[in-house]
Amino acid sequence: METKITFRLANEHDLGRIVEMLADDKLGNKRERYEQPLPECYLKAYQAIASDPNNELVVACHGNEVIGVQQITFTPYITHQGGWRATIEGVRTSSSERGKGVGTQLIRWAIQRARVRGCHLVQLTTDKKREEALHFYEHLGFNATHEGLKMKL
Amino acid sequence: METKITFRLANEHDLGRIVEMLADDKLGNKRERYEQPLPECYLKAYQAIASDPNNELVVACHGNEVIGVQQITFTPYITHQGGWRATIEGVRTSSSERGKGVGTQLIRWAIQRARVRGCHLVQLTTDKKREEALHFYEHLGFNATHEGLKMKL
Repeated sequence: METKITFRLANEHDLGRIVEMLADDKLGNKRERYEQPLPECYLKAYQAIASDPNNELVVACHGNEVIGVQQITFTPYITHQGGWRATIEGVRTSSSERGKGVGTQLIRWAIQRARVRGCHLVQLTTDKKREEALHFYEHLGFNATHEGLKMKL
Repeated sequence: METKITFRLANEHDLGRIVEMLADDKLGNKRERYEQPLPECYLKAYQAIASDPNNELVVACHGNEVIGVQQITFTPYITHQGGWRATIEGVRTSSSERGKGVGTQLIRWAIQRARVRGCHLVQLTTDKKREEALHFYEHLGFNATHEGLKMKL
């Protein structure tokens, strides 16, 4: 049975829990700093996201407990006849909740938000090292039509 | 020899030329409407971009002539210790100018803008049907580490 979850915008008090989930991951554990007190860089990023109407940091909750997170960015483009896109990034679910459909519900919620915002496309990239993630997204109806290229600065 | 070009933010008067370039493309010709008068959807998208401090629609010019375009989106994320990313999209050069290094200069300019904006990463996706584009970006230093997944709504 799917875990019953609710969704809401993250607030500042969720930030420690969000970073904890991001760090509890085979790629995230090398690049995040889940420390007390939480490094200020996370608070600054949160404030930039929260003040931008085209960015939404969303948490999935089971009761009062935050068990998942994702960020949705809405972007207007000239291409596709001036179409808006939604980009999903930073999707994580609590390790204790994996395999219970939380990720599926998160992504479905993002797709619904994209519709509400009038987007013609939802997109994301997933690291080729995350083979299971690729299958997860394809199962949800995404097509791996593109190469995702990155350059570190 | 490289074509000597300058870069600036696009204005409303560039919009027809931008759509003309987007439509003059093997994928773009199926999805854009380069018509007179220009469909209003393009103007609305332009206005949304121009009013968003995290989006820049950039044109490359040779003298007064617009010969290239790209959009750069700057996004704050919680991941990577609250790092900002720059996403490049909608890159086109005038068909008459292809092979003269305009695309290379466009992308280098975007990378420079990303540094100025304090991004730790520049990213883009390219359709797997555009094999030559993949090599172009890899040659510029991008790594195809990710799958780019899309879902049409």
